[in-house]
Amino acid sequence: MKGAMSSLLVVGSVAFDTIHNHLGSHTRILGGSATYASLAASQLASVRLVGIVGKDFPKKAVDMFRGRGIDTTGLEVANGDTFHWEGRYSDDLTSRTTIQTDLNVFADFEPKIPESFRDSEFVMLGNIAPELQLHVLDQVRSPRLVIADTMNLWIDTALGALKELLSRIDMLVINEEEARQLSGFHHPLAVAEALRALGPETVIVKRGEYGALLFLDEDIFCAPAYPLKTVADPTGAGDSFAGGFLGYLAQAGHDDLRQAVICGSAAASFCVQDVGIGALENLSREDIEQRIREFRQLTTF
Amino acid sequence: MKGAMSSLLVVGSVAFDTIHNHLGSHTRILGGSATYASLAASQLASVRLVGIVGKDFPKKAVDMFRGRGIDTTGLEVANGDTFHWEGRYSDDLTSRTTIQTDLNVFADFEPKIPESFRDSEFVMLGNIAPELQLHVLDQVRSPRLVIADTMNLWIDTALGALKELLSRIDMLVINEEEARQLSGFHHPLAVAEALRALGPETVIVKRGEYGALLFLDEDIFCAPAYPLKTVADPTGAGDSFAGGFLGYLAQAGHDDLRQAVICGSAAASFCVQDVGIGALENLSREDIEQRIREFRQLTTF
Repeated sequence: MKGAMSSLLVVGSVAFDTIHNHLGSHTRILGGSATYASLAASQLASVRLVGIVGKDFPKKAVDMFRGRGIDTTGLEVANGDTFHWEGRYSDDLTSRTTIQTDLNVFADFEPKIPESFRDSEFVMLGNIAPELQLHVLDQVRSPRLVIADTMNLWIDTALGALKELLSRIDMLVINEEEARQLSGFHHPLAVAEALRALGPETVIVKRGEYGALLFLDEDIFCAPAYPLKTVADPTGAGDSFAGGFLGYLAQAGHDDLRQAVICGSAAASFCVQDVGIGALENLSREDIEQRIREFRQLTTF
Repeated sequence: MKGAMSSLLVVGSVAFDTIHNHLGSHTRILGGSATYASLAASQLASVRLVGIVGKDFPKKAVDMFRGRGIDTTGLEVANGDTFHWEGRYSDDLTSRTTIQTDLNVFADFEPKIPESFRDSEFVMLGNIAPELQLHVLDQVRSPRLVIADTMNLWIDTALGALKELLSRIDMLVINEEEARQLSGFHHPLAVAEALRALGPETVIVKRGEYGALLFLDEDIFCAPAYPLKTVADPTGAGDSFAGGFLGYLAQAGHDDLRQAVICGSAAASFCVQDVGIGALENLSREDIEQRIREFRQLTTF
């Protein structure tokens, strides 16, 4: 993991989360898909963050991003409050219910890509409305790799725009349940075949505590999740996976998608070990490299 | 995979299954834990089958076992009918409901280990009442390796006997949901630690379409399931896994548990591709070896 870092544009939500789980209640902690993905990638790539926050967004959070080398030129500060989500996890953390969603300034988010970001080589379109993801694509010049996440809300309410998006991206990274919903199939090869027929050359299916599957042409790679004794908070694990994955690829000279999946899995495994971004804000490149070695020990036969 | 085969004693159910699934209804097809495990192991080890059937059990089924090199000396034929189970799978095959269970001769099963089987080096105690599994252990002399499966029924109704069994076996192979129930934990390391504290040095957690986890001391191995486009019938997959696993170890000179897990996963992947034992009754050692190579391609990074 050496060499010059490439530029990685991350677009998504920057939010406050109030999380109730087996460890207690965690009020208005920093969250959002772009937050997790940016932090996970920050030690690997030159991250350029695009998102929107309100006037209530604390300077110390912006400083934390900057301290991790993240370029916050694209973090728009709008009149109003920052996006706030409140939810409660089941005791085994396998499901969660939303208590309240206050979109606030996020309701009018129209991602504006600063001129200095438009040459980004790698683009991560975090889980926002597919219309907005398309709007980002219209503003970047000629990225080497575009990856997008999505969710059931957009499959249900914006399928047309989502399909247009899928025809324009290189990779889709998606939760297994939503991959099944979007494809109409259950078993992995059928799911991947149907999703790739919609456009993306590569599909990554995120399976939570069961790891991830990578599909590229006839090539399939199965990555486990890192086995843990306890999990503090699964919030942001999928976004951390995407950040670690793209961060790996954005390191100069790396094009091994399998290694990138493992790097993403390593980032996700750190993410869930603490509440919110607790484990990510101090994560080092060495931490990730050590965990990648542990993944090799876990899977070699 | 060369060398003389060691003896593998398989004790469990031999049954007729009536299965309703997305492919239709399959009436009174050959099934049972000992059937699946024996067939999966039969090309790798010298399998000795112990079970009970009724007068209605067809000679051609016995001939099929023998044709696969399985010693049926221990297959008791009792007055009455063979154990019959009828169930219906959900369309995605992730759940099933029992329509009818006719224990028939299985209700009075007391496994009698033929004298010629008592020197068996490897013992698989399929999922039957733990009292009966203990009764088998009392009859074998000094096996090198004893592995047992169990289920929620015995956790609920025979926990004392199950705990005694766990203190006397080398390995527990158990479905993830039941592993969580028995251990009282959710996350894999906590589950394994609690189960190993009950006796077995090694624990294998079967995760269905997500593969298997092997725990031995501090060593953990994550094996994926073989990704498929369609699944015909998951019945017997866990027993095929155990058969392939022990069959691998029973091959002379093999003691690599990781390779054995992959061999079990290969056997299970064939099992689910056809209804009942359809894919197992003609499975060759070469088929398994080829699939093990595919598993390496699936997991290497």
